[in-house]
Amino acid sequence: MTLPRFSAWAVTGIPEVLDGDDLATLICDAVDKQAEGDAELALAEGDILVVASKIVAKAEGRLVPATDREKAITEDTVRVVAERVHAGGVTRIVETRQGLIMAAAGIDMSNVPDGFALRLPEDPDLSAQQLCAILRERLGISLGIIITDTFGRPWRVGQTDVAIGAAGLQLTEDMRGGNDANGRPLHATIAVVADEIAGAADLVKGKAGGLPVAVVRGLGRLVTGLDAPGARSLVRSLEEDMFRFGSAEAYQLGYDTARAEFEGGAAATPLAGRQGN
Amino acid sequence: MTLPRFSAWAVTGIPEVLDGDDLATLICDAVDKQAEGDAELALAEGDILVVASKIVAKAEGRLVPATDREKAITEDTVRVVAERVHAGGVTRIVETRQGLIMAAAGIDMSNVPDGFALRLPEDPDLSAQQLCAILRERLGISLGIIITDTFGRPWRVGQTDVAIGAAGLQLTEDMRGGNDANGRPLHATIAVVADEIAGAADLVKGKAGGLPVAVVRGLGRLVTGLDAPGARSLVRSLEEDMFRFGSAEAYQLGYDTARAEFEGGAAATPLAGRQGN
Repeated sequence: MTLPRFSAWAVTGIPEVLDGDDLATLICDAVDKQAEGDAELALAEGDILVVASKIVAKAEGRLVPATDREKAITEDTVRVVAERVHAGGVTRIVETRQGLIMAAAGIDMSNVPDGFALRLPEDPDLSAQQLCAILRERLGISLGIIITDTFGRPWRVGQTDVAIGAAGLQLTEDMRGGNDANGRPLHATIAVVADEIAGAADLVKGKAGGLPVAVVRGLGRLVTGLDAPGARSLVRSLEEDMFRFGSAEAYQLGYDTARAEFEGGAAATPLAGRQGN
Repeated sequence: MTLPRFSAWAVTGIPEVLDGDDLATLICDAVDKQAEGDAELALAEGDILVVASKIVAKAEGRLVPATDREKAITEDTVRVVAERVHAGGVTRIVETRQGLIMAAAGIDMSNVPDGFALRLPEDPDLSAQQLCAILRERLGISLGIIITDTFGRPWRVGQTDVAIGAAGLQLTEDMRGGNDANGRPLHATIAVVADEIAGAADLVKGKAGGLPVAVVRGLGRLVTGLDAPGARSLVRSLEEDMFRFGSAEAYQLGYDTARAEFEGGAAATPLAGRQGN
């Protein structure tokens, strides 16, 4: 058996990305430059490129004036999942048009020019598809693309990077059909390797260092055709999601529903009747 | 600048772990054997060892007869977070005594001997501390330990590995005090590197292959004293958690509270008065 092993490193020398930039060329130029010092750093068959959504969004012209930030959040929001007022303002956790559940619809003010805010790429899977197709054609190798963003999560502190767009690789490894080392069937284990790779790449990309791209090498087993499902397939359907609303929001909804029943007034919509529930 | 880079590989040759086994010795023996073929695989200063909780639990004698599984789940449960009945039975998401929110209190039937179920380590941070201290002493190098388990999550399909125990390394990188590449302050970014490393290691450890240990090399910047906070510090406090109950549970609680108020019967405890809320 080959030793299961991979490595990850940052691509250095990616310039500040501007509206209309050709990301494939920026990345190839940076990789070529890096490979001058160490030929092993050239892209190779089976590599996975992990790209921060920030530079994809910048290349796609997704900057908006900071004064339009609230409007953009509203436009990019499909539904509000939870909301909390605190000293620093309001934290609004929403579902975005991309199916992602995140604070402020992923609209970000850091690492963007003064006076601007940055929306997510319109369709990160499509962005990944296009980048993957161009790079495969130009380099003549099969590689995978993951576009990442930084997410908070319930129950645990802090943030990790996850995959919001992907192309040319398998995003999960389904262990359900397999057996464990004792020959017993493995239950309910679908390892979401795309998110694990996104997090792994964050360990070298960093947020403050201006290193928005990483190469992951050694996981070529996951690289596949361009027709593989994108990161949208990682979004859990609302029907299967036991945490589709914030606790306080769901409580309030239950409370209002019962009150309406007893007061005979306008009935609140029961949770079970809400959109997507 | 040194190129940000790391690599991860599986430690091969760890035998089936039994109650009372000395994990440090099992791991060192397997690593030594592996290093015979490739000296680079010997443990080195700054390495991080990622260990599946399963073998820690086995060494600590945490097997229970399968017939006592339900009892063990109840014993290890601090509170039920969400519950759903489906064709395959009941999925109960609970908070464990370790502060972890997971299905069935993390009690697992796969990769354990027939007729048994396996509880989590009693105190995974303590397990990590002990293993880390022994290995540091024996090898004369500073290394970090992460003990992992496999978790589902809201909103996204599938499972990823996260850190449930840790010692000798920094678990987060706090970007809040820093500036982005444009000199603007970075908001609310605490990168939970311990979980990202846990996920990265899962890419080589695998679940079915009997490879419960991985080495991660190149992240020595995170390795620190044995007094660093453990993985318990990654548990978000209930006060700060907007998803402390399942949506259906919170809805029902709100409904029952209002009904009790209107009927003048026994009042349900409002969400705000529940334990830890």
